[in-house]
Amino acid sequence: MNEAPHLTFDLDTTDVSTGHLVVPKGADCEALSLPVFSCNRGEGPTLLITGGNHGNELEGPIVARRLVEWLPEAQKCGRIIIVPEINPLAVQAWTRNTPIDGKNLNRVFPGRSDGSVSERIADAISRLLLPMVDTIFDLHSFGPTWNFPPAVITHPIADVDLMTKTLRISEAFKLPVTLLWEHNDTAGMFDTWAHSQGKIFICTEFGGGTVGAEALTIYEAGVRNGLIALGLVEGKAEYPTFRQQKSGQTLETNPSDQLKSPAPGIFEPRCSVLDEVKQGDLIGILHPMDSLSADSIDICAPTTSIVCGIRSGVYVQGNEEVASLARPLAL
Amino acid sequence: MNEAPHLTFDLDTTDVSTGHLVVPKGADCEALSLPVFSCNRGEGPTLLITGGNHGNELEGPIVARRLVEWLPEAQKCGRIIIVPEINPLAVQAWTRNTPIDGKNLNRVFPGRSDGSVSERIADAISRLLLPMVDTIFDLHSFGPTWNFPPAVITHPIADVDLMTKTLRISEAFKLPVTLLWEHNDTAGMFDTWAHSQGKIFICTEFGGGTVGAEALTIYEAGVRNGLIALGLVEGKAEYPTFRQQKSGQTLETNPSDQLKSPAPGIFEPRCSVLDEVKQGDLIGILHPMDSLSADSIDICAPTTSIVCGIRSGVYVQGNEEVASLARPLAL
Repeated sequence: MNEAPHLTFDLDTTDVSTGHLVVPKGADCEALSLPVFSCNRGEGPTLLITGGNHGNELEGPIVARRLVEWLPEAQKCGRIIIVPEINPLAVQAWTRNTPIDGKNLNRVFPGRSDGSVSERIADAISRLLLPMVDTIFDLHSFGPTWNFPPAVITHPIADVDLMTKTLRISEAFKLPVTLLWEHNDTAGMFDTWAHSQGKIFICTEFGGGTVGAEALTIYEAGVRNGLIALGLVEGKAEYPTFRQQKSGQTLETNPSDQLKSPAPGIFEPRCSVLDEVKQGDLIGILHPMDSLSADSIDICAPTTSIVCGIRSGVYVQGNEEVASLARPLAL
Repeated sequence: MNEAPHLTFDLDTTDVSTGHLVVPKGADCEALSLPVFSCNRGEGPTLLITGGNHGNELEGPIVARRLVEWLPEAQKCGRIIIVPEINPLAVQAWTRNTPIDGKNLNRVFPGRSDGSVSERIADAISRLLLPMVDTIFDLHSFGPTWNFPPAVITHPIADVDLMTKTLRISEAFKLPVTLLWEHNDTAGMFDTWAHSQGKIFICTEFGGGTVGAEALTIYEAGVRNGLIALGLVEGKAEYPTFRQQKSGQTLETNPSDQLKSPAPGIFEPRCSVLDEVKQGDLIGILHPMDSLSADSIDICAPTTSIVCGIRSGVYVQGNEEVASLARPLAL
């Protein structure tokens, strides 16, 4: 019989402690030991912070490590558990999916104890960490082939009370964008599973994962704002400056807001995130590469909207998403 | 017996023509047809422009396609052959190396007719296109995990006359940096092979390959300046603006200027390309991820220098290059 996933230390220890979450070995690889930080200061909110869910989104692990440095001094109450890198295999390979089983960790929750390594990671987190907390910050970056503003993203949640709480805390991050994102590929997401367990789930995004100083500064400030909103840390929340602006807006997007590539080719972006576009404005150009006589194709905005995400230059298949438009949230 | 590499059209045709360079099939994949543009305006310099050598550096293919649009009107004399995408397999996979054989196309020149697909591509270019030209512009972007200024790079060339000519044309691009780069991994490079054939080889770089509007504008202006310097296009060369500066500098770097990672972990850049640093200035931070008690490690400048290239946030092995420093060229 396989070893069960386990922690190498007692999370109920008072104050700061560190250890590992052990994901058992399986047919595909040896056991993994994920470093875990815990700061347990008694009564109050309980929070799990995770980074490195996708291995090519590295702002999260770095911000998580920074938190490990300053939280022992700053945390006033409650419990915070941090796993800077929940998918070290993907981080080391700089890939979105786990290289050993090819799976997207963020589509296999709650995982399986007898599954492949991504599923075993999800299982260990779902069984050992998730039940101990009421809120999760999962730190993403959208990935290196996208430009995306610093944002908190949430999917629509059927439970109105949980939806309201989630939006409230999302906006408290004071990032440039809070986005309510309706899409059709949410099965197996960490979010979806956490919602089903009644947890508040905050997914931060910041395209595209290649870690600039500005990105990290904004990201860390946003997470600190979130900790203040939860009451875990004292201080004054501040808007991080993004493109000379100190403000935030709450947007919504759904599958019909996705702009798709009209053909295979190289996508050339022609606008920036948070640009306001009118119907017919140029969003990007698709360059077919298999023929030099085939004209490049303009991809234009179908309607007045805000550019929320846009692919950087990358080869895309036909009908692949190249931009994500959005509108102010109408509640 | 295998089909030989061939062109589907006569490159000696006067004026504009297009067709394909056919790379024969092999044991590993079917034949490839690379779109080729030719503009033959008689006497004058002969130039080959290639993009997509590395599949995750996409400014080159896009700039090459733009040239295909405006060269028929602008080219005054000589011959220009353009292959926007010499490695379509890598472009489609958004990978540096060719996915089928795992090889770096830019390390297998002059290639082999009976080799794997990367070697067959190199062979087709070496045999059918290279002999027809005296100059090559190979459009790179350094790759998505690096930041690198718009630059022309050349390696030291033993032939003094060729070195002098190459530097002169490199500087004529008027990009922010012209870099003489001595490194130890030049065997099999397109450059090295072209030099051995007495050709002038211009390798443009622009980190990191994810195609912003500013990058493309600077890149296209630089290539146009190069065409003007060769006498192929009339007009006035202009410095493209980069970081509010209109100027260029010529730098040199060698293996001892490479900063290496002191341990495995996530590299966090802490300076920008073209920053001037003094001994001890912070270049970046290495975050070990396998232990939260291991301190992050500062990586500092060993001497006064200019930051020429710096990794973006990415997981690195121990002793892997994280920054490339440089100094003004002393000739």
